Amino acid sequence: MHEDIRKKGELARQASRRLVTRDTRTRNRALKTIAETLTAQQSSIVDANSRYLDAGLQAGLSEALLVRLLLNSSRLQDVARDVLAVAALPDPVGETFDACTLPNGLQIGKRRVPIGVIGVIYESRPNVTVDISALCLKSGNAAILRGGKEAWHTNMALAATVQDACLKSDIPAGAIQLIESQDRAIVKDMLTAHQYIDMIIPRGGAGLHRLARENATIPVITGGIGICHVYVDQTADLRKAVPIIHNAKVQRPTVCNALDTLLVHRDVADELLPQVVHALAAAGVEMRCDPRALVIVEEHPAVQPAGPQDFDTEFLSLVLAVKVVDDLDEALDHIYQHGTQHSDAIVTENYTRAMRFVNEVNSAVVYVNASTRFTDGGQFGLGAEVAVSTQRLHARGPMGPKELTTYKWVVLGDGQIRE
Amino acid sequence: MHEDIRKKGELARQASRRLVTRDTRTRNRALKTIAETLTAQQSSIVDANSRYLDAGLQAGLSEALLVRLLLNSSRLQDVARDVLAVAALPDPVGETFDACTLPNGLQIGKRRVPIGVIGVIYESRPNVTVDISALCLKSGNAAILRGGKEAWHTNMALAATVQDACLKSDIPAGAIQLIESQDRAIVKDMLTAHQYIDMIIPRGGAGLHRLARENATIPVITGGIGICHVYVDQTADLRKAVPIIHNAKVQRPTVCNALDTLLVHRDVADELLPQVVHALAAAGVEMRCDPRALVIVEEHPAVQPAGPQDFDTEFLSLVLAVKVVDDLDEALDHIYQHGTQHSDAIVTENYTRAMRFVNEVNSAVVYVNASTRFTDGGQFGLGAEVAVSTQRLHARGPMGPKELTTYKWVVLGDGQIRE
Repeated sequence: MHEDIRKKGELARQASRRLVTRDTRTRNRALKTIAETLTAQQSSIVDANSRYLDAGLQAGLSEALLVRLLLNSSRLQDVARDVLAVAALPDPVGETFDACTLPNGLQIGKRRVPIGVIGVIYESRPNVTVDISALCLKSGNAAILRGGKEAWHTNMALAATVQDACLKSDIPAGAIQLIESQDRAIVKDMLTAHQYIDMIIPRGGAGLHRLARENATIPVITGGIGICHVYVDQTADLRKAVPIIHNAKVQRPTVCNALDTLLVHRDVADELLPQVVHALAAAGVEMRCDPRALVIVEEHPAVQPAGPQDFDTEFLSLVLAVKVVDDLDEALDHIYQHGTQHSDAIVTENYTRAMRFVNEVNSAVVYVNASTRFTDGGQFGLGAEVAVSTQRLHARGPMGPKELTTYKWVVLGDGQIRE
Repeated sequence: MHEDIRKKGELARQASRRLVTRDTRTRNRALKTIAETLTAQQSSIVDANSRYLDAGLQAGLSEALLVRLLLNSSRLQDVARDVLAVAALPDPVGETFDACTLPNGLQIGKRRVPIGVIGVIYESRPNVTVDISALCLKSGNAAILRGGKEAWHTNMALAATVQDACLKSDIPAGAIQLIESQDRAIVKDMLTAHQYIDMIIPRGGAGLHRLARENATIPVITGGIGICHVYVDQTADLRKAVPIIHNAKVQRPTVCNALDTLLVHRDVADELLPQVVHALAAAGVEMRCDPRALVIVEEHPAVQPAGPQDFDTEFLSLVLAVKVVDDLDEALDHIYQHGTQHSDAIVTENYTRAMRFVNEVNSAVVYVNASTRFTDGGQFGLGAEVAVSTQRLHARGPMGPKELTTYKWVVLGDGQIRE
């Protein structure tokens, strides 16, 4: 194991043990201090950021990537505001639930506690360094962060700012640590450091997720990959369907909750598809249609035949796969076979089919008559999110501070023994 | 991947998808039918069991193991009764929680749903085959079971009985399947079959847990290994302390919630330790004491000096490690360094130290003035347990039917799109 992981791991464990004794007020005060320190140290952070943007330009990074990596003072103010928003959220730690008194007089209940040490491996956008730090501190967890190499200097500057603020706020040293080494082998060491890390969150593409799943000996939260469907039923109100499809596809096409596949009941395909093609083509969307949809809209220049991979692709761009189905069962089968259990929606006015869709689609988030774009911690009222989980254990969908906690059983007695 | 895993995995996935549509009544009726069928097919099961007991005798298995493997009609009646007890539990599936209406009118909430397909790898006792089947069906999950080779014939007979009952009760074929091959390589195939299995529970010794942690690409629930502590504080009521220590060590020493290490505050060691040694020696317990405890009780024949491993051992037998500590902090440090986050108790009359112990000991179950032996699904009112988790994600401590569920977000709208 890399020396850096061992040292930081031990420090994080110690910090995590001490963090448990820091009350809500102390943790929230630390978050406020982080926001203040970000503002106070703004010029040195912006400076570090522009230094690596220069290096990125020289290394030939694309302009789109450079724009994502940019952290000017206005963006930094947004980051600071997000930290204050996390501070304002209710504290999940300490909540007691499923409590009762047993017949023998034992008082038992589950108490919500921090998970311990969270490992996060992420790529590109540097604001993640601060977001994750804030969410972990809010929920009483220590964190070991490993950012992408494109944002190295900025991440270092941001982590230093966070640590600085923690020191001023009675948060134990080592609560938030950034891996400094750029050695790629260190990622595998992180994934197997179960003596130091309790949960690993890989935030990145499919390759990173596979690496984590195949190598981790620590519980991994995978997510953030969504092949999302909207199914338009024969009873759908098309005045709802077209805006939902447009919003799910166009409002922000580069993210995991954006629409990838439109399924349309054959009885409404003739009426709906021309409207959809008209609205989406105007927004620059290219539509890849199965043969039955193609018959209806093939004249339109934004339409082309779907290829073999199009129904198994997360496009992350202005492309939409379109398929006509015979009935709800075919739609359910399609989602079952091609979905990623992220976010799927039905548009219908029929009560029974709405309920069947909700009951039988096995995704983290199922929608009736709404855009899949709502799958988001902020939109769901969690205040912020550390990831969108598409696995089935622990948490599903947007994960806020509460999803960074676990529970312990607390059993209070007065001398009970087991018969 | 072994053909048996692939075939059974595909069947289990299909069954799991259909199980979601089976209501509480159908699943409970299946459990009642299992109990009836166990009784009806009693003679053939007992026959299969005695056949492999014969084989075990010839193979030279110890008498203790053969006793554990025995399934006579009286034990089979107990198993059937446990299945009926699971049927009588409330159904965890379908519960809605954290529900609210967002400002934009979206109704959102989390709905409890089955996890999907549960893989269980277990050793020895054949009743586990039925217990796990019942808990999985109760919670709407499919299961792929892999029992130990010592109980092969009995497990086959029991699984056939369960499947027979499922067929009669409108439970989809493939809901409960037993791996028939005795090929050991199949265990590793199970651990990496993430396309078919959503959660793996290894029920066995430390070797099996390590194998699972190191090889699984599926979320694993580890647990069932406990180095459990009782700390007797200087204010303890010794009339409570001695029975708690005796019960935790003696009532069933072979299980994971039995006491391993007794920590005693120096101020009460002189008074407590002779009483403990007297009571425990009478029950056949051997005590391994650190130097400070040894000074007090070394004359007693049941006492000997602790060896270097004794504070890191789950004894599973009538052995107790004993240590005198200066204060609560030393006790907390000891538990932190040597514990397995299973079950730990303090005996005290002091409110503040009781609260510190509850807050700072980071175990699945923390006790004040009660025996660690209560860590059990039945005792905690869960009705039954599939495992005792000592990991931090998803579930901790005894896992009943509710802990075999996850949730999906259900979002009901009337045309909402994201701004």
